[in-house]
Amino acid sequence: MSSCIASCEPLRAKDDIYQGKIIDAHSVAECNSQEEFTARLAESLNTWRRFGRRGIWLEISGDHANFVSSALRLGFVFHHANPPCTVEGSEDSPPVPVSNSKGTVTLSYWIPGEQGVTSTLPSYATHSIGVGAMVINRNKEVLVVQERVEPVALKGLWKMPTGMVNNGEDACDCAVREVEEETGVKCRALKLVALREAHSSVLHGPQGRSNVFMVFLCEPEEDVCSIVKQDSEIAACKWMQMDEFLESLGKILPPETLYYVLSELGCHCAKGDYKGMDIATLPIGHYAGENRVYLNPRPKL
Amino acid sequence: MSSCIASCEPLRAKDDIYQGKIIDAHSVAECNSQEEFTARLAESLNTWRRFGRRGIWLEISGDHANFVSSALRLGFVFHHANPPCTVEGSEDSPPVPVSNSKGTVTLSYWIPGEQGVTSTLPSYATHSIGVGAMVINRNKEVLVVQERVEPVALKGLWKMPTGMVNNGEDACDCAVREVEEETGVKCRALKLVALREAHSSVLHGPQGRSNVFMVFLCEPEEDVCSIVKQDSEIAACKWMQMDEFLESLGKILPPETLYYVLSELGCHCAKGDYKGMDIATLPIGHYAGENRVYLNPRPKL
Repeated sequence: MSSCIASCEPLRAKDDIYQGKIIDAHSVAECNSQEEFTARLAESLNTWRRFGRRGIWLEISGDHANFVSSALRLGFVFHHANPPCTVEGSEDSPPVPVSNSKGTVTLSYWIPGEQGVTSTLPSYATHSIGVGAMVINRNKEVLVVQERVEPVALKGLWKMPTGMVNNGEDACDCAVREVEEETGVKCRALKLVALREAHSSVLHGPQGRSNVFMVFLCEPEEDVCSIVKQDSEIAACKWMQMDEFLESLGKILPPETLYYVLSELGCHCAKGDYKGMDIATLPIGHYAGENRVYLNPRPKL
Repeated sequence: MSSCIASCEPLRAKDDIYQGKIIDAHSVAECNSQEEFTARLAESLNTWRRFGRRGIWLEISGDHANFVSSALRLGFVFHHANPPCTVEGSEDSPPVPVSNSKGTVTLSYWIPGEQGVTSTLPSYATHSIGVGAMVINRNKEVLVVQERVEPVALKGLWKMPTGMVNNGEDACDCAVREVEEETGVKCRALKLVALREAHSSVLHGPQGRSNVFMVFLCEPEEDVCSIVKQDSEIAACKWMQMDEFLESLGKILPPETLYYVLSELGCHCAKGDYKGMDIATLPIGHYAGENRVYLNPRPKL
């Protein structure tokens, strides 16, 4: 195929459900030069404009970063980017292809139509979700950890295991996973104790976004379970009587402050004198599938 | 300043709190060529490596997109990107500078040290947060809307106003804002009714991320308040008796499915036979500021 013919050919793309087009990543990767990519993308936009298309999505891998300038010149804007996927290969998720070794950037383009000039493309993620797990056993002991790296003010703090929810993961499943990763203890999530919201701060890096932190009451799967500490992040881990835990926490965090209150509510939840929300699953209904929901006990009618 | 001297000069950068460096955007913008940028960035990395720096953050605006390839070649990877800011200027947020007309992309670089080879840089946002507002007045009427653009299956559906939480916004404040934007009704958020989690689906665009949906019970600020409908998104808006609302909803959504249950719980919450979580604010404690929290009534001790 000569470069002239190739340059006249629109990029392949599939439809999205909003009159838009998602450009095929293979079609981008097969362009041999910035010139060819630019010509084919311009041709594609002309075609899609004629056919009343609206939002156009273009993902570019780090290996073709020089295509980014071309797309921006044609009127695309940055939408979001993702780092290289570092998950190791498994049965469910095969190893990351080499072409994603630098990550990808996704750009969008809006073709104005009858619906209006302003883009109605959805924004990308705005929040991270963190979880805390109050794992409390039958003897009213709390599973607590000391982290290796943390702000100086919290050194020596015995705290509940915490972690970040992965994309595609339910928060209560994240609590169970993080507890096992950090301490080796297998547990079940029983209740959503409480939530807190926080915004752009020193704790959220230079590009701080908003964060929701969800605390779960959990119970160990077995009465006797040995701790297998994760060494790189966790300095120490043990079971601690609830009263002793709150007393040690209260020496560092005043009792009416956020993380003390959240920890204390977890203890009350285990004792049964605080409700928390139940963890349930409901069918979506108007399309296939089901979702996790957190709700208080429903009224008896 | 000759280009030779400029090319020897590291880029300016400020420290983050994790032994890292955040490269100054002005320092990037003043590079006159890709060659100068590459030389200065390479020199910067050498310096920071000698001084034991770890995570390096680099934001590149769309106007300097050709610098992206250079940074990737030096070992940077994509971290995240942001579209052009479309917020209009105000006292609090000045108009968007021209240099952000195409958005920005942020790359990161990890310098391995004693702590380990693997980057511990935080990931970017993984979730969007949506809210639904069950605004119910003293006469037990629910404020309901019909949306203009929605999947065909839901046409004619009278539903609670919904919307997306902005970065930096508390979910309960978003509920109040969305209700006023869509219907003109000023209201107060009283309770968090329930939450649901959903993952990558047709509803979340081609680059689907996870979504948390939080339903709030609200009350109008005034007994008599006239509706001022937002025309571009909302086709119709009115007050509807709770029973009539649930009956009309039940004709489209089966009663044991997600959005019916969430709407019904909002009605029960207004009648007082469902708890929901209280909306409170707590001091953070170990550093300045306070955060919004959602929690059930705390036990009396």
